[in-house]
Amino acid sequence: MSVKNEAVFAELYPFWNALTPSQQLEMMEGTTLRSFEPGDHVHNAGQCTGVLGILFGRLRVYLLSDTGKEVTLFRLMDGDTCMLSASCIIKNISFDIYVSAETKTELLLISSAVYDKIANENPKAESFMKDIISMRFSEAMWIVEQLLFMKLDRRVSIFLLEQSALDESDIITLTHEQIANHLGTAREVISRMLKYMSKEGLLSVSRKGITILDRKALMALAN
Amino acid sequence: MSVKNEAVFAELYPFWNALTPSQQLEMMEGTTLRSFEPGDHVHNAGQCTGVLGILFGRLRVYLLSDTGKEVTLFRLMDGDTCMLSASCIIKNISFDIYVSAETKTELLLISSAVYDKIANENPKAESFMKDIISMRFSEAMWIVEQLLFMKLDRRVSIFLLEQSALDESDIITLTHEQIANHLGTAREVISRMLKYMSKEGLLSVSRKGITILDRKALMALAN
Repeated sequence: MSVKNEAVFAELYPFWNALTPSQQLEMMEGTTLRSFEPGDHVHNAGQCTGVLGILFGRLRVYLLSDTGKEVTLFRLMDGDTCMLSASCIIKNISFDIYVSAETKTELLLISSAVYDKIANENPKAESFMKDIISMRFSEAMWIVEQLLFMKLDRRVSIFLLEQSALDESDIITLTHEQIANHLGTAREVISRMLKYMSKEGLLSVSRKGITILDRKALMALAN
Repeated sequence: MSVKNEAVFAELYPFWNALTPSQQLEMMEGTTLRSFEPGDHVHNAGQCTGVLGILFGRLRVYLLSDTGKEVTLFRLMDGDTCMLSASCIIKNISFDIYVSAETKTELLLISSAVYDKIANENPKAESFMKDIISMRFSEAMWIVEQLLFMKLDRRVSIFLLEQSALDESDIITLTHEQIANHLGTAREVISRMLKYMSKEGLLSVSRKGITILDRKALMALAN
């Protein structure tokens, strides 16, 4: 596995050079290269999959209720690290997340036990893990504030602009159901909102997807 | 200030005995004893008030929108520590919370700069701070799951039972407006739900407050 070289680890993990050679070896041996196709499940609630270091691609981290309702907490992209998929080694974390691939994704999966051992031996590895947790806390609270305090037109506008930036395209090929699952609402609600926005000339809805027509107006709605 | 003795610090901060005598002195000198009455503001968004160690009382930590909408994230009680009121010293935390007193409260306020210095010098102090952050993340996500996935009758039941346990009383003296602010909804919605619950014989609503009549049925609704 050619990507499992030191430079890749040093790029993903800022504490890499603070590890001893034997810790570096241990970490490399505790790591596997994994590939996922769009839609693949990467991590399910209740598992302790391990620490994910994204080489390239895009993962979606979300909550899922008993009744199948979803909401996206954040996305992970090239160079990002996911610690919540190793929540068994993080003190005080007791909620469950799901992770799935949105695009073709390759990542380095470090075994939870190996990361835990290294974090216990090296304060910088521990600190890095916990700083990532704080970042995710902050990102999740941004979603909470949207859910609680923002009107749906604004949330949909923000989501469409973000998605357009991620896909580097004016056309968003997600279904109304998928958008609803990102935003924690129902398909009908999204369809109604998109219909309203298309009547206002902000976008057009067709079989090939949602096309942003008036980006300026959409940005005004988002802010 | 008699409570500013070493035993109190050792009780609040598990890393106390790992500090050097000069660090302990620095931390004590960087701490002030503060008293609050019910309703007092303890911390507002945008401030970096410092680290709070609750001696006794009860604080409410909540989000507040531009339009005045609120939602309670968690409560802090005797022996609890609040780090989010010192978010300027926590890497990656960029959201704002508010803290107010719900009962007469006394706490030790450690200056952000002093805690930051000690956390930089002592990995255990840093680790404690970040473990508290993880705990609050977990608590906040429990609220998110309630907001997203639970019906309001269940959320109101859970809230009333928790409040009854906190106050050690069958009578909850909060106004409908206050309950709405805890749960991130509108007063009218809470009034309607309480009316329904009182018609079902779960509770009674009078000028002195909400009295739980059928605790068993309320617990069934909460689970």
